[in-house]
Amino acid sequence: MGEFDLIDRIRARATTRDDVVLGIGDDAAILEPPPGKQLVVTADTLNAGVHFPEATRAEDIGWKTLAVNLSDLAAMGAQPAWCTLSLSLPGSDPKWLDGFLDGFLELASRHGIAIVGGDTTRGPLSLGVTAMGFVEPGRALRRDGARVGDDIWVTGALGDAAAALQSLFAGAALDRTLRARLDRPTPRVEAGRRLVGLANACIDVSDGLLADLGHICARSNVGAEIGLDALPASPALQRFSPAMRQAWQAAGGDDYELCFTARQELRDEIAAAMGGVAVTRIGSIVTGQGVRALDADGNEWRPPRTGYTHFE
Amino acid sequence: MGEFDLIDRIRARATTRDDVVLGIGDDAAILEPPPGKQLVVTADTLNAGVHFPEATRAEDIGWKTLAVNLSDLAAMGAQPAWCTLSLSLPGSDPKWLDGFLDGFLELASRHGIAIVGGDTTRGPLSLGVTAMGFVEPGRALRRDGARVGDDIWVTGALGDAAAALQSLFAGAALDRTLRARLDRPTPRVEAGRRLVGLANACIDVSDGLLADLGHICARSNVGAEIGLDALPASPALQRFSPAMRQAWQAAGGDDYELCFTARQELRDEIAAAMGGVAVTRIGSIVTGQGVRALDADGNEWRPPRTGYTHFE
Repeated sequence: MGEFDLIDRIRARATTRDDVVLGIGDDAAILEPPPGKQLVVTADTLNAGVHFPEATRAEDIGWKTLAVNLSDLAAMGAQPAWCTLSLSLPGSDPKWLDGFLDGFLELASRHGIAIVGGDTTRGPLSLGVTAMGFVEPGRALRRDGARVGDDIWVTGALGDAAAALQSLFAGAALDRTLRARLDRPTPRVEAGRRLVGLANACIDVSDGLLADLGHICARSNVGAEIGLDALPASPALQRFSPAMRQAWQAAGGDDYELCFTARQELRDEIAAAMGGVAVTRIGSIVTGQGVRALDADGNEWRPPRTGYTHFE
Repeated sequence: MGEFDLIDRIRARATTRDDVVLGIGDDAAILEPPPGKQLVVTADTLNAGVHFPEATRAEDIGWKTLAVNLSDLAAMGAQPAWCTLSLSLPGSDPKWLDGFLDGFLELASRHGIAIVGGDTTRGPLSLGVTAMGFVEPGRALRRDGARVGDDIWVTGALGDAAAALQSLFAGAALDRTLRARLDRPTPRVEAGRRLVGLANACIDVSDGLLADLGHICARSNVGAEIGLDALPASPALQRFSPAMRQAWQAAGGDDYELCFTARQELRDEIAAAMGGVAVTRIGSIVTGQGVRALDADGNEWRPPRTGYTHFE
């Protein structure tokens, strides 16, 4: 298969939307933004061996490539609409591409997001997406809105992806549900939509809770205190020792849960509004700067590292 | 420098626009599309050793990364507005990044396009852009509008980039103007804007004239005949033998000129409308399918290859 066969293969399988005037197959796509909305745009690239283990199945790479981008839209409270997909592939492998599209398009159809363009080049395996969505004007969830006294919340459970990754590296037997959390993270799109008008600040947990909550603090010019014991753990994670588990929960990356802050008066409203997604209060926004994680005795806990960062 | 230092370095230098509500630094950007316009979106990635020689200067890589994306917006007749930039870098090299940004931002400022987001990852050198622009509803230049009897036109001159690339590979001395055409292509943004309402179909010449004009023919369900002798050549290209020159002009890629079709009655209007950009009539749209290139004797000429395609 040549480049254009690959593109045709993607086009043949990609679903479209009424607001896509012209999709894949021209120099660019033509789209109709809805009147009266703001456009939310994010871009994330996954590289083999950096963002996923080389041995990851094509289906799972496809899912995760879109999931990490949808997670960024979710953290803004945006409704997904369109994306571009840039594939850099070491060779032409229709079977791999079909598997990749299986995973990518399965998640895309759940959120009604259409691939409208992109490109296909030869090179080391790398998958780039730019995702676009909409939000009501002035209502996006940002990092800079946290206020002293706010509760700090997270959706779902933390630490599963880090546990899976570390088990893989160690060659240990790996629980299937943990592996699924690493390979097929759930972007909290619906939860993010429901937080519009409720949350003061929001971010997705991709680099690790302490690091990501630290971004909220830095942009909002506040500090945060969280309780290690309050961090939500999945049943699978509870089988690990507290020390390992808490390090993964507080500092592990790749969970793609939402961490958000909200006024204390909204506790009941938030618990009721989330539509089946679990939410847990884990701490408070305080004056000062930086994030302090406290153990059961009230002592400050410091992680072995505070989140994944490239180039260090 | 870590990942966040790299991002801060980009943010510190990136210019913004009034319609950027929130730019680099959150989970996603928030943008205000202008009312009553359609959004035009394109994505192109450049990989080291595939899309540019490994030895290319950082400044030139920066320029070209944006130029190839602006060229796609130009081919739609769109006005550039915003872009995301995904950098995959083998290491953290502030000097390289500054050079890259010098070239990228020099071209960005000429066209008023703002970087609104993106990401920075570790990996083999690869530069991905998704560019966004606007066009009046229903007025975008597409590939599918060519009509039998249309003139076929190109902007500027063809073959320079291919001549430069082949000379580089051959280790031959290289004319400075040819090298500049390879490293610093001029996206024909203003020409594309002026063609709105005049051209029936348009594409940018990135894979080679015959291949790209072939895309117009396929999408418009027509054929094309062009005269080899009519293809515009720069003074630098005219120093090569006709056989080499014509192969580069007809089948070489990377020129980023616009190839467009228009009704014959519009010849004078088009010549007058282009604002200093040279345009040359090179042939006609005919019934049938495919592109026929005719030499001075009226014989069909076939290129050694019909344009660059990955995976073949």
